[in-house]
Amino acid sequence: MTGDVELVEVTRGGRVESVHRGRAVICDGSGAVIEAWGDPDAVIFPRSACKMMQALPLLETGAGRDLTDRHLAFVCASHRGQTRHTELAAQWLSDLGLGESDLRCGVHLPYHVPSAHALIHAGEAPCQLHNNCSGKHCGFLMLGQHLGAGPDYIDPDHAVQRAVRAAFEEVCEEESPGYGIDGCSAPNFAIRLSAFAAAAGRFARAREDASAARTRAMARLVSAMRAHPELVAGDGGACTDLMRATGGKAAVKTGAEAVYLAILPELDRSIAVKISDGTTRAAEAVIAALLVRLGVLAAADPVARRLTEGPIRNVSGLTVGSLSVTLG
Amino acid sequence: MTGDVELVEVTRGGRVESVHRGRAVICDGSGAVIEAWGDPDAVIFPRSACKMMQALPLLETGAGRDLTDRHLAFVCASHRGQTRHTELAAQWLSDLGLGESDLRCGVHLPYHVPSAHALIHAGEAPCQLHNNCSGKHCGFLMLGQHLGAGPDYIDPDHAVQRAVRAAFEEVCEEESPGYGIDGCSAPNFAIRLSAFAAAAGRFARAREDASAARTRAMARLVSAMRAHPELVAGDGGACTDLMRATGGKAAVKTGAEAVYLAILPELDRSIAVKISDGTTRAAEAVIAALLVRLGVLAAADPVARRLTEGPIRNVSGLTVGSLSVTLG
Repeated sequence: MTGDVELVEVTRGGRVESVHRGRAVICDGSGAVIEAWGDPDAVIFPRSACKMMQALPLLETGAGRDLTDRHLAFVCASHRGQTRHTELAAQWLSDLGLGESDLRCGVHLPYHVPSAHALIHAGEAPCQLHNNCSGKHCGFLMLGQHLGAGPDYIDPDHAVQRAVRAAFEEVCEEESPGYGIDGCSAPNFAIRLSAFAAAAGRFARAREDASAARTRAMARLVSAMRAHPELVAGDGGACTDLMRATGGKAAVKTGAEAVYLAILPELDRSIAVKISDGTTRAAEAVIAALLVRLGVLAAADPVARRLTEGPIRNVSGLTVGSLSVTLG
Repeated sequence: MTGDVELVEVTRGGRVESVHRGRAVICDGSGAVIEAWGDPDAVIFPRSACKMMQALPLLETGAGRDLTDRHLAFVCASHRGQTRHTELAAQWLSDLGLGESDLRCGVHLPYHVPSAHALIHAGEAPCQLHNNCSGKHCGFLMLGQHLGAGPDYIDPDHAVQRAVRAAFEEVCEEESPGYGIDGCSAPNFAIRLSAFAAAAGRFARAREDASAARTRAMARLVSAMRAHPELVAGDGGACTDLMRATGGKAAVKTGAEAVYLAILPELDRSIAVKISDGTTRAAEAVIAALLVRLGVLAAADPVARRLTEGPIRNVSGLTVGSLSVTLG
């Protein structure tokens, strides 16, 4: 993958042990690239970092007109499977006259370790409600009902996914060259990193009193994420920690294989990051460093320091190394 | 980190999603470099891939003269904390008149997931016996007793670590530029990758009927690893799977942050790998591909295919991507 640059060093005993290459882009609210590290035109899979774009048809069609900000934050979430998340998913499905078995996201243990251990201790298996994408899938089911479409809402040719793809390409203002199947079995559409960042810039500029339904939907989703950081990830999740640490100035969202997106309405800016090797620790370090650079996160904030510097501790709690981000 | 090369591609939906850069070296039994990918003179932390080198003083001093092959395989292990491992550690400590609290490796859940879940289900906390390095630490304690040294055997100035450093530098035939503290709190000595591979080449050439105590110790440790792959990692561990799949032709050992070492006595060869970004999936793919290249692992072997190609499956078991290794 050419055109990436070294962004993160991981040191041990004062010596570089590992490095992470990648690319990052800052756009303004018009979608123009303001600053870039590495080639910003590389095609990436945005993975879960594009959930607020996948959620647009839910609002634009009117399917989700009665949803609360909590539902909308949850639609954009890669949540940690805590009780607050599973209860919201269960209630939403019940309100739709559906159940857990209607989800197509699959089963994994909660990302929130104490919640996972509580299940194991009780001898209970996790279910699809615990899947980090269950909020997105509740939204897909609601949209599918509204469209009168069938139950296989993750099929790329299903009306739900056709609507999602159209909205995604429209806000990115370019055609996706193709899709891959995501961890939750929904299609995920590839896109140039700069086009993805530009779409996020348009989200940053969107206002809820706009005339266009799309613009209102974009603004509403950002507002919902900022109002409910505890639903977007959960306790100990970097998205939740970063949104809280910025005092709500940023809506931030992670994606698998080291993607990160930030939407900054007051600054009329967005940030998109892809670490070439797919390592989350590096994506978290770079997004935090860029939030510091843009002035929405204090460099001395404990979350900023933890994500950008470490320390890296071993199992006994000894400090063994550190991180550093180089933005040139 | 300059001088590395792209070695692994991770694809999704037929499109490259992530890439891994790194370097790899093949040496012969004299320590001469036979082939290299990327600059082989980069300094790395060998991490747990050097455990057979850290174990040399245990045999050379006579401290471990009565140890079985099982003990010696276990000394070289990053084990998965199954009952076979914890029982061996507990018995060894008991034989020394010591107990779990004499270890200094720290506590983490077993890497073997069913074993971890069994502990959690029973409401039991893991202990230091479950630490993947507990075998190495049993060896350190035995050596420390033999040397009449104090209990803080992980101190870099302790007689045990001074002996370990001397042996490590001697088999690498160069001085370490310094150390870092490992995950298990023992010092880990930095070294050029090519010197590390050369040391492993000397292990490959060593024979148990040699006159030199060092050579006999090297041969004995390799023999023990090959005889007991189930102790070097455990069920589902790549080292165990690779040693079995090569029919015992290779002693292989992983290290944290994507290091891999292979010792091939019949071929008079060694392999050392370091992936620059520290991602284990890539180190496993490259070591497997190089074992195939050297003819000790069948390309069609299920372990070889899983590690070098995938498929990558999502939580629902769908094939979503694949790996590929490029050795040029």
